Amino acid sequence: MIATIRRENQQVLLLDQNLLPEEVHYQPCQTHEEVAEAIRSLKVRGAPLIGVSAAFGMALAVQNYNGSEAGLPAYYDEAERLMASTRPTAVNLFWALRRMRSCFQAAAKSSREQLVSRLWQEAEAMYAEDIEINTRIGDHGQELLDGEVRIMTICNAGALATCGYGTALGVIRSAYRERKLNRVWACETRPVLQGARLTIWELMQDKIPVTLITDNMAAAVMRQESIDAVVVGADRIAANGDTANKIGTYGLAVLAAHHKIPFYVAAPLSTVDIELANGSLIPIEERDADEVRMVRGQYITVAEVEVFNPAFDVTPHELITGIITEAGVIKSPFASGLRQVLEVK
Amino acid sequence: MIATIRRENQQVLLLDQNLLPEEVHYQPCQTHEEVAEAIRSLKVRGAPLIGVSAAFGMALAVQNYNGSEAGLPAYYDEAERLMASTRPTAVNLFWALRRMRSCFQAAAKSSREQLVSRLWQEAEAMYAEDIEINTRIGDHGQELLDGEVRIMTICNAGALATCGYGTALGVIRSAYRERKLNRVWACETRPVLQGARLTIWELMQDKIPVTLITDNMAAAVMRQESIDAVVVGADRIAANGDTANKIGTYGLAVLAAHHKIPFYVAAPLSTVDIELANGSLIPIEERDADEVRMVRGQYITVAEVEVFNPAFDVTPHELITGIITEAGVIKSPFASGLRQVLEVK
Repeated sequence: MIATIRRENQQVLLLDQNLLPEEVHYQPCQTHEEVAEAIRSLKVRGAPLIGVSAAFGMALAVQNYNGSEAGLPAYYDEAERLMASTRPTAVNLFWALRRMRSCFQAAAKSSREQLVSRLWQEAEAMYAEDIEINTRIGDHGQELLDGEVRIMTICNAGALATCGYGTALGVIRSAYRERKLNRVWACETRPVLQGARLTIWELMQDKIPVTLITDNMAAAVMRQESIDAVVVGADRIAANGDTANKIGTYGLAVLAAHHKIPFYVAAPLSTVDIELANGSLIPIEERDADEVRMVRGQYITVAEVEVFNPAFDVTPHELITGIITEAGVIKSPFASGLRQVLEVK
Repeated sequence: MIATIRRENQQVLLLDQNLLPEEVHYQPCQTHEEVAEAIRSLKVRGAPLIGVSAAFGMALAVQNYNGSEAGLPAYYDEAERLMASTRPTAVNLFWALRRMRSCFQAAAKSSREQLVSRLWQEAEAMYAEDIEINTRIGDHGQELLDGEVRIMTICNAGALATCGYGTALGVIRSAYRERKLNRVWACETRPVLQGARLTIWELMQDKIPVTLITDNMAAAVMRQESIDAVVVGADRIAANGDTANKIGTYGLAVLAAHHKIPFYVAAPLSTVDIELANGSLIPIEERDADEVRMVRGQYITVAEVEVFNPAFDVTPHELITGIITEAGVIKSPFASGLRQVLEVK
């Protein structure tokens, strides 16, 4: 399985996903600023991977610090602020930063060398846990499926969006292993084409049968091709189950409901933001207009056209059949189900 | 207003829409084979324009014939077959060919020079009628709208899809003239990007306010931006009102119904195929997989990926609020309404 991120000596290597599928290139990052820039520019993307990348970035930051002991906390705050500013929607980023901060605080009295070592350990533990969690998500998810299923997905909630195995594609991998998968329909996912570039590449590497469609074909495919389930990832899940995910997800959920197709969200519990009552409170990142005006560096329209480019949308919980987590599948009412697995009183 | 097609001396000039918006280039066609190839390769597209282009092509065919009198009918049949084979879905093509055949048969006894002249006249009459029809569609359509409306559209059902003024964009033009238009949201319309390339260019030329979105943003825009109406064109309308149009139209209709937004089809009566009981009988053109795999000549995915590429989908009449024609707006039940305006007993 291809690694999306790894530590090598004193640096972090990130698989540059903007170059896929043409080129498999690992960008070496020596500083946390480089990691932040890689997150911002979508070289690493996917809520779980953003979280773990930020954790590696914080370890790098402290490793590189050569100022006074007294200056370290302020330096850490500053580095954390930079990391937190990269992408506003995926809550896993803030979850990972909180976890690294706990580790930093707990080891604050140790020697610098021990502190740095503890931070690397924590980041690497998060990496390993993520793969373990995704395998559990996949296995819970495949239990929902019966027969030779036809699954639609959007964006890339795969190994490339995580540290391995994937969330939505984890469910697909487990279904494939259990011989329950007929075929995947992958929406190309404009503007950045994570479906066409990443999901297609990832599934074809594993010889999982997949058909590429443009996003506007989803309704016709649901009607004609007997889709059995839509499975997507998530960037943030509010306490009531409302889910922010890649732009287009909400539309798929409405279309799935119209065609009476179950609609599943697959995500680790670190994606749940139990502090947010509902999805209307989730900040939605709006990205550069040229992402819409261009495809891979080439204008496809009038350069001056006005553009709307929200990176995510929010699917209301009423349209979600189940949320597949490492702790099992949560069904409506999501509010109590999520509180229960998170052990929130 | 820019001309999409015109006769110049012994040849036909076609605006090559594959080069828009970067380049305004008229391709000269000296033969009907060149016109057929231009239709097939989407240099000219849009149901009404395909029909009129085919008519010009048939005039060219007869003009160029220099065989025996006895051989002319078989030659005409052959040329007509070629023209009919270009695009299977838009019924305006077959309507135009029928009309040219009537003209050909009526003038069969005339001199060759008179026959050719009659065919050019007929094609040019269809051209002029199309603009007149679209103006009437626009004017009937704007009467449905009240206040400062926000309209969503897909593909290009504009001046570029017709001989001028447009069908769906004709409604938008008339609404703009009547100061009823707030803004248009244009879906980019993958795979061939007629929305991004043509609708944006056409509306910006006329300074009509427009925002470009990717196709998967439609649901979020409907939810957040208070869209007042969706207006689309049509490639074929069955007797019961089921409508084939650019892929993605059906999805927009489902989304519009979910958001309680009126969904209008704007099309000339030549788009109605009263012989077809319902939309399941409309042949749907499937186009080359590379249209999906590539954007403007550049691969965006793994070159070998399996692709589904239907050029059109069918919107069932239950999801259509009204069909805007030159004879007025037809509402449910469409079957009787369409028969009435077509004076079918």
